[in-house]
Amino acid sequence: MSARIALASDHAATALRSALIAHARASEHVVIDLGPHRVGPVDYPDYGRLLADAVANGQADFGVALCGSGIGISIAVNRHPALRCALVSDPVSAALARAHNDANAIAMGARLIGEDMAKACLDAFLATDFEGGRHAARVAKLSLPFSVKEPA
Amino acid sequence: MSARIALASDHAATALRSALIAHARASEHVVIDLGPHRVGPVDYPDYGRLLADAVANGQADFGVALCGSGIGISIAVNRHPALRCALVSDPVSAALARAHNDANAIAMGARLIGEDMAKACLDAFLATDFEGGRHAARVAKLSLPFSVKEPA
Repeated sequence: MSARIALASDHAATALRSALIAHARASEHVVIDLGPHRVGPVDYPDYGRLLADAVANGQADFGVALCGSGIGISIAVNRHPALRCALVSDPVSAALARAHNDANAIAMGARLIGEDMAKACLDAFLATDFEGGRHAARVAKLSLPFSVKEPA
Repeated sequence: MSARIALASDHAATALRSALIAHARASEHVVIDLGPHRVGPVDYPDYGRLLADAVANGQADFGVALCGSGIGISIAVNRHPALRCALVSDPVSAALARAHNDANAIAMGARLIGEDMAKACLDAFLATDFEGGRHAARVAKLSLPFSVKEPA
């Protein structure tokens, strides 16, 4: 199934972003490349926000967020209450992100993951459906206001 | 250096939580065990929020968030604007989380990581200081309101 996939990175992950863009296009997905499109250092929170907005606004079905470790941009994306971004390093976790968490974005670290493994993560993520059921109520709680503090 | 470490999990990660509590106490850290303290399924967003509050309120210096994959609870913790939670699977990323992102929490997946590897991640996380410098402005942006959308 063809999906609309938005990709954003920082300067440390431009090569991995290009590789994943080519891979996604070869799989007939629609790619929205959010950059950066300029040379030199950028701040991962800026591009995490661009990605989150693209998914939250319905411009893209899924987001791929990349920085050196994947950590910073995954935090940035998850600041948006409509985004559920999983930092992954293997296809098992990439599939679990969809199956159990209905994740609409994955993050990866360009300095930590190899290009073929990153492609396999993206493929596993896109090939897996949310299981719903007992997971649905938990996923819904991820968008609650933060004022709810006590476990039920 | 002794730190105050809060730990929270879901039902899938209680054994790993117990192992990390014993490990942290053996390293003379102060442990705040946020549970769950009851048997049966719980919802990871509830325990992620408890953990985020404990760190944000200053009750703990650092948080350790555990669920089956680590994904769900890492998303929950990062909903709090004062938390920076890194989902890690190896000591390199655990150290980078502190060095570059000034992370105040780590998440791990009990079904994906072995107990000794999880201990090594926690040790690397606690042994590493934030580098500051060029990373400080990026970290500060992680706490900005989400209305800021365009890269500078």
